[in-house]
Amino acid sequence: MAKGDKINFSTPSGFPEFLPSEKRLELYLLDIIRRVFESYGFTPIETPAVERLEVLQAKGNQGDNIIYGIDPILPPNRQAERDKSGETGSEARALKFDQTVPLAAYIARHLNELTFPFARYQMDVVFRGERAKDGRFRQFRQCDIDVVARRELSLLYDAQMPAIITEIFEAINIGDFLIRINNRKVLTGFFKSVGITEDKIKSCISIVDNLEKIGESKVKQELEKEGVSGEQTQKIIDFIKIDGSVDEVLDKLKYLAQNLSETEQLNLGITELQTVIAGVRNLGVAENRFCIDLSIARGLDYYTGTVYETTLLGHEALGSICSGGRYEELVGVFLGEKMPGVGISIGLTRLISRLLKAGILNTLAATPAQVMVVNMQEDLMPTYLKVSQHLRQAGINVLTNFDKRPLGKQFQLADKQGIQFCVIIGSEEAAAQKSSLKDLKTGEQVEVLLVNLAEEVKRRLG
Amino acid sequence: MAKGDKINFSTPSGFPEFLPSEKRLELYLLDIIRRVFESYGFTPIETPAVERLEVLQAKGNQGDNIIYGIDPILPPNRQAERDKSGETGSEARALKFDQTVPLAAYIARHLNELTFPFARYQMDVVFRGERAKDGRFRQFRQCDIDVVARRELSLLYDAQMPAIITEIFEAINIGDFLIRINNRKVLTGFFKSVGITEDKIKSCISIVDNLEKIGESKVKQELEKEGVSGEQTQKIIDFIKIDGSVDEVLDKLKYLAQNLSETEQLNLGITELQTVIAGVRNLGVAENRFCIDLSIARGLDYYTGTVYETTLLGHEALGSICSGGRYEELVGVFLGEKMPGVGISIGLTRLISRLLKAGILNTLAATPAQVMVVNMQEDLMPTYLKVSQHLRQAGINVLTNFDKRPLGKQFQLADKQGIQFCVIIGSEEAAAQKSSLKDLKTGEQVEVLLVNLAEEVKRRLG
Repeated sequence: MAKGDKINFSTPSGFPEFLPSEKRLELYLLDIIRRVFESYGFTPIETPAVERLEVLQAKGNQGDNIIYGIDPILPPNRQAERDKSGETGSEARALKFDQTVPLAAYIARHLNELTFPFARYQMDVVFRGERAKDGRFRQFRQCDIDVVARRELSLLYDAQMPAIITEIFEAINIGDFLIRINNRKVLTGFFKSVGITEDKIKSCISIVDNLEKIGESKVKQELEKEGVSGEQTQKIIDFIKIDGSVDEVLDKLKYLAQNLSETEQLNLGITELQTVIAGVRNLGVAENRFCIDLSIARGLDYYTGTVYETTLLGHEALGSICSGGRYEELVGVFLGEKMPGVGISIGLTRLISRLLKAGILNTLAATPAQVMVVNMQEDLMPTYLKVSQHLRQAGINVLTNFDKRPLGKQFQLADKQGIQFCVIIGSEEAAAQKSSLKDLKTGEQVEVLLVNLAEEVKRRLG
Repeated sequence: MAKGDKINFSTPSGFPEFLPSEKRLELYLLDIIRRVFESYGFTPIETPAVERLEVLQAKGNQGDNIIYGIDPILPPNRQAERDKSGETGSEARALKFDQTVPLAAYIARHLNELTFPFARYQMDVVFRGERAKDGRFRQFRQCDIDVVARRELSLLYDAQMPAIITEIFEAINIGDFLIRINNRKVLTGFFKSVGITEDKIKSCISIVDNLEKIGESKVKQELEKEGVSGEQTQKIIDFIKIDGSVDEVLDKLKYLAQNLSETEQLNLGITELQTVIAGVRNLGVAENRFCIDLSIARGLDYYTGTVYETTLLGHEALGSICSGGRYEELVGVFLGEKMPGVGISIGLTRLISRLLKAGILNTLAATPAQVMVVNMQEDLMPTYLKVSQHLRQAGINVLTNFDKRPLGKQFQLADKQGIQFCVIIGSEEAAAQKSSLKDLKTGEQVEVLLVNLAEEVKRRLG
C-alpha cells in the first residue's frame, strides 16, 4: 500500500483518546487519587484486561453489560497454526467490564498470599460494548477501592470512605460537593416495617432510588403499580423526604422506628448509620461535606449496608461523581464464602469528559516541559545540551530545541505548548557563563549566571 | 450458582497478574521512567486498547503477530439487539499489539492539534496472541518514547536516547549496563561497498544481527547460503568484529571507508554515528555506559539510521533491556508522508519478570502504609482515627487497625505487610497526649508526644 488514504484510521466508535493536554490532566488526577488511596493504606493491584468468559459471567454479574469476547487473528503466513495454537476452541475469553468480578477472581487466585482485611485500589480500564452515546464510553478507566474481610469488617472502614472522597475532591478543587450517605438496611427495614412483603422490597427500592430522576408523583404511581397501598405509599414518601441535619435525620429515624413494628432490621440500619457518621466525624470530615439521604439506594442489587453517592453542588445533572457501598456476597463468589467488603468507585474517564465539557476542569499544558533551551547558533549546541542536563538534574523538565528557526518562532513553539520559560544563550552569554531567562507569560527577560540558573528557574516556577 | 467451585477462576494462560508487592514495584519503576521521560519534555498519550483491524494491519505491520479480534457478547436478555447494536458486521476491531502503529494512527487523527517535533511517551499494555512461554506474555506493558518530525529531525534527538536510557537504569539501580549503538546506514553502506547486491542486503543484515545468538561460523555458513562469496564473507566478519573504544571504532570505520568503493551511504552512516556520539558525550553520559557495536542491527525492517540495544552486564542472557532506533516511513503511513522519528522501548512486564527471577530486583512491601495505628481498646477509637488523620496530613501513609486482636497479632499483621512502625496508644498514653512508637525492624520502642509524632515518624522514615 503506497498511501494510507484508503484506510479509515479514526478510533473505533466509543473508544476515547486524549490529546496530550487531556492525558496530562488524567495523570494529574490519577496521581492525586493514588496518593489519597495510599495514604489510607490501600495497595495497588491490576488484573488482566482479559478473563475467562465463565469468570465474567459468574453469578450473573454480566448484568446488562455487553462483554467483548476476544479471538485470535493469525497473520496470513501462520494460518496453519490455527488449530494447534491453543488459542481457539472451548476456552472462551473476554475483556473485563468492571473491576469487581476480577477482584473476586483475584482474591480467589491469591487467597493465601494476601493479608486480610485486604484493602486494594485498582485504576485499570474496563470495556463495555454499549452503544456509544453522550458520556458513555466503550473503554474507560475506573478508580476503585475496596476493603474485604474474611469474616467481620468494621463499620469504620465504611466511615473512611467519605473521608477519602472528601480528600480527593478537595485536592482536585472542583468546588462544593456533598456526599450523600444511606444504609440499605434502613431502607429494607423500613419497607418491612410498613408491611411491604419481602418479594416486593427490591423493586420498591429501585423505584424510590429513581426519585430524583422521575419525581414524587411518578414514584407514587409506580409504587401503586407494584401493589403498594395508598397508605403505605404515603408513609414511604414521607420517609424518603425526611431531611435536616445529620443528627436531625437520625433522631427522626429513631422516633419513627419507635412507632413501627418489626423494626429489627430498621434499628440495625440506624445503628450502623450512626456508627458510620460518628467515624466520619472523628476522621475530621467537615459537616457541610456529608448528609444522610434516605432516597439513595444505589441500583445495584449487591449492596447490603452503607451506600454513598457524591453530588457536585450546582452541577447535580452530572450525576454522582463517586459512589459505592457495602456488600456481603460479592467477592467471595468463587470461593463460596461470604466476604464482607466496602468500596467506592470513580468513573474517571467519564468524569474528566464531563468536567471538561462543563468548564469545571481545564486541561493542562500540552507538554510537561517547563523550560525550553532555545537554539541561537548551531556551534553552541554543546552548551545547550550541558545547560539542559544541568537543569534536569535540578528536577526541571527541559525541552532543548534542536531545530534552526527564528527566535520568535521558537518562543511561539514554546508558548503554544504551555512552556513558560525560555533560556537564551548567544555567544556573548556563553562567553560570560550566563543566560537570558525569558518569561513568556510576562514578557520579562532577566540575565542569570548559568551557575544560578536552575535555582532561579525553580524559584520562578514556585 | 450456589458455589463457585465449578468455575475455573485462574487467569487465562499468558495473561500475567501481579501480587501487590509486585504491582507496587511496577508502579515504582513506572514513576521513575515517567519522571525521566518528562524531564526531556516527552508528553504522555494513551491510545485505545482497541483499533480498527485495518489500522493494525496497515503496511503489513502485523508482522508475525497474532492479533486478538474483539466481538460483542450480549447478555441473555438482550440477544434481540444483536443486529441493531452497531457492534457487529463489517467494522472489525482488534486489540493493539504494539504502540507504533497506534502512534501512526494517533498522529494522523490529531495532525493539526499536535506540535512537531512531537515527543510523546506511552506506557500502555498491548496484546499478542503468542503461545505463552518463558517470559512471553499475551498482555504486557511497554514504555515507549518517540519523537517524530514532519520533515527533518535533528540527530541530537538520537543522542538523547542513550542519555535517557542511562538515567532510567541508573535510577532503577540494577547494576552495570552497556548501551550498544550502531547505524543501519553504516551496515547497509558497508554491505553495498563490498559488493552485496541491494536485494540481498536485508537478509545479510538479519544474519549478522544473529551473531550473538548463533556464533561466527554459523553466520559464515548462512551468508554463503545467501550467495555471498568467501571473500565478502571474510570482509563482513572482520567488519562486525571491529571493536575498541568508541573513538577507535570510528577511526577504524573511516580508515576502512577510504579503501572501499561506493562509500556514500557508508560515509553518511559514519558521520551520523559521529554526530550522535558527540551529542551523547555532551549530554554527560559516562564513557563506560555506551559503545559502538557494528553487529547490532535490530531485526525490524523499519529502522534506517541509529539503532540501540542495552545489555545488563553479567546478565547478557536476559537480552536487550531497552532497544530502539530511527525510522523514516513508519509513522506517516496513514498520511502517505515521510515522517522521520526516533524512539526506544522498554518491555516493562517482561523486564520485571526477568529481573525478579534473576534476583536483580526485589519486590516492595505489600502495602504502601508506613505506619499502623494499632487498636488497644475500642473506646479510644476516636483518638486512633484522629491520630491517623494527623499523620496522613503530614504525608504519611497510615493503616488504622479497626479489628480487636491481641497486640502481638497486630504487630505480626503489620510486619507481614512490610509496615515498619506501629503507633500504640492506651488509656494512659491518651491521657498524657502521647504514644509509643514501635519500630518493628529494630524492636525499639520510644515514647513520643502526639504533637511531635508526625515529625518523629518522618525523621525515622528518612
